[in-house]
Amino acid sequence: MSAILLNHIDEVKSDIKQWKNDNLKIGLVPTMGALHSGHASLIKKAKSMCDRVVVSVFVNPVQFGPNEDYDKYPRTIEKDKHLCDELGADIVFAPSAKEMYGENVKLSNTDLTFVCPPYNYIDCMCGKSRPGHFDGVATVVTKLFNIVQPDFAFFGQKDAQQLFIIKKMVKDLNMNLEIIPCPIVRETDGLALSSRNSYLSLDERKSALSISKALFEIEKLYKNGVTDTSILFDSAIAHLDKKIELEYLEFRNFDTFQKVDEISKNTLTAIAVKIGKTRLIDNIILR
Amino acid sequence: MSAILLNHIDEVKSDIKQWKNDNLKIGLVPTMGALHSGHASLIKKAKSMCDRVVVSVFVNPVQFGPNEDYDKYPRTIEKDKHLCDELGADIVFAPSAKEMYGENVKLSNTDLTFVCPPYNYIDCMCGKSRPGHFDGVATVVTKLFNIVQPDFAFFGQKDAQQLFIIKKMVKDLNMNLEIIPCPIVRETDGLALSSRNSYLSLDERKSALSISKALFEIEKLYKNGVTDTSILFDSAIAHLDKKIELEYLEFRNFDTFQKVDEISKNTLTAIAVKIGKTRLIDNIILR
Repeated sequence: MSAILLNHIDEVKSDIKQWKNDNLKIGLVPTMGALHSGHASLIKKAKSMCDRVVVSVFVNPVQFGPNEDYDKYPRTIEKDKHLCDELGADIVFAPSAKEMYGENVKLSNTDLTFVCPPYNYIDCMCGKSRPGHFDGVATVVTKLFNIVQPDFAFFGQKDAQQLFIIKKMVKDLNMNLEIIPCPIVRETDGLALSSRNSYLSLDERKSALSISKALFEIEKLYKNGVTDTSILFDSAIAHLDKKIELEYLEFRNFDTFQKVDEISKNTLTAIAVKIGKTRLIDNIILR
Repeated sequence: MSAILLNHIDEVKSDIKQWKNDNLKIGLVPTMGALHSGHASLIKKAKSMCDRVVVSVFVNPVQFGPNEDYDKYPRTIEKDKHLCDELGADIVFAPSAKEMYGENVKLSNTDLTFVCPPYNYIDCMCGKSRPGHFDGVATVVTKLFNIVQPDFAFFGQKDAQQLFIIKKMVKDLNMNLEIIPCPIVRETDGLALSSRNSYLSLDERKSALSISKALFEIEKLYKNGVTDTSILFDSAIAHLDKKIELEYLEFRNFDTFQKVDEISKNTLTAIAVKIGKTRLIDNIILR
């Protein structure tokens, strides 16, 4: 059966109301489109846990900085819709920015209500180089949660900081749903899937491979008993291709989001880099 | 029948779940307790529109500034509960600050997710003299909305700026409820009911009467054809008792919240003053 493509909030709310009346479990997979196997794994997981699945496809302007890639971010709604059909999603919700934020408003905190994650969660890692990004993410995710009213929402672990922030938001604001984190999906050679991989030239694609190599090196050393993060940091950096500009490589407790000097169980090791103009992130969890 | 007093979020959510299953319309009256006839009018309105009514009683620490009256704010939970019984509320939800915000967290935006209304709505009137106040209000109201999941929430028009901000928040974040504004309730001599009236000495109580007198003077002049707000402003000020310190007296379009120089229909005329240490607000809508 094919998914229904909806562009309007009211249409979605009306279907959701019916589903709630029928006591169906609803799953939401929030995406920015340009769907790849990583997204597919989220949709499959949602299908396995829910009676109905909504995939939202929305390149959210308020989470992009002025010099970021909002305009060139890949938009492939027909392919996305086709994948959602194949995987058995029920609704593909693809609103316009006007539908989501209204007309004649500045897309900023002068004119719009924002959901703002705690500074301790955003004044670091990706939040540091992308000011306002996570306010935009938390705001649009809150909107999607209110529109779809899901029992479960599915997020990839690749955006690890985002996952922390969304889980914290759900807890802090007493939202009525459970966040289901899903593992990173990689190319066979190790590169983490990302819609932004499409920006890479052939040469850059080769350099990008060293990102996951650096993380796997850390994992190998950790399994051999190395727990000092400064040693792990240096070893990882040595594996990065010289064309890569490191933004951060951090070790954080996966439960508390606190920085750690010594690895213990459940340590998130997260990296962000630039290759040419393309910004990529990746991470592993040391268990 | 008497209302159930609940202190824990999970207890409320569990009752709400049952009510939702039974397809009952739920009304929420959010209060800080110290209930008076103004609150009673909200509860009565809720009873008239809903199958079940929840009254929340919570003096919300995050909406008070460091030099404000959080500690001395009147707490009269037994009397409040009794009034709720009389009026037929179903649940009185009176959580502790720990229950609402968790333990071992700073009650600030370093540690907690906040809902932040637009600057254009908070950088004026009460928001100007109470920085952070409306972030605290929007955050706790969002939490209460998520806990109680009401179809309707009832707010007094006395806190006019709060009402604007909450309505804007519901719209911006696509929340699934309707805000019902309820008219100001006054003493027979005109003073707007407020839990903070209990702070006033007998002398201050007499001075306070001139607040509503000033607003009624504006209404009278407007009915006689005066629409220039600077004339109305001066006439109102002349009626204020000399012991009163004016914080603001503003004229705003009741639909757009824009300042106006000439009164047209639906103009909010709002005033804030200090009498001794007590801060009071009042308003009228010119129609």
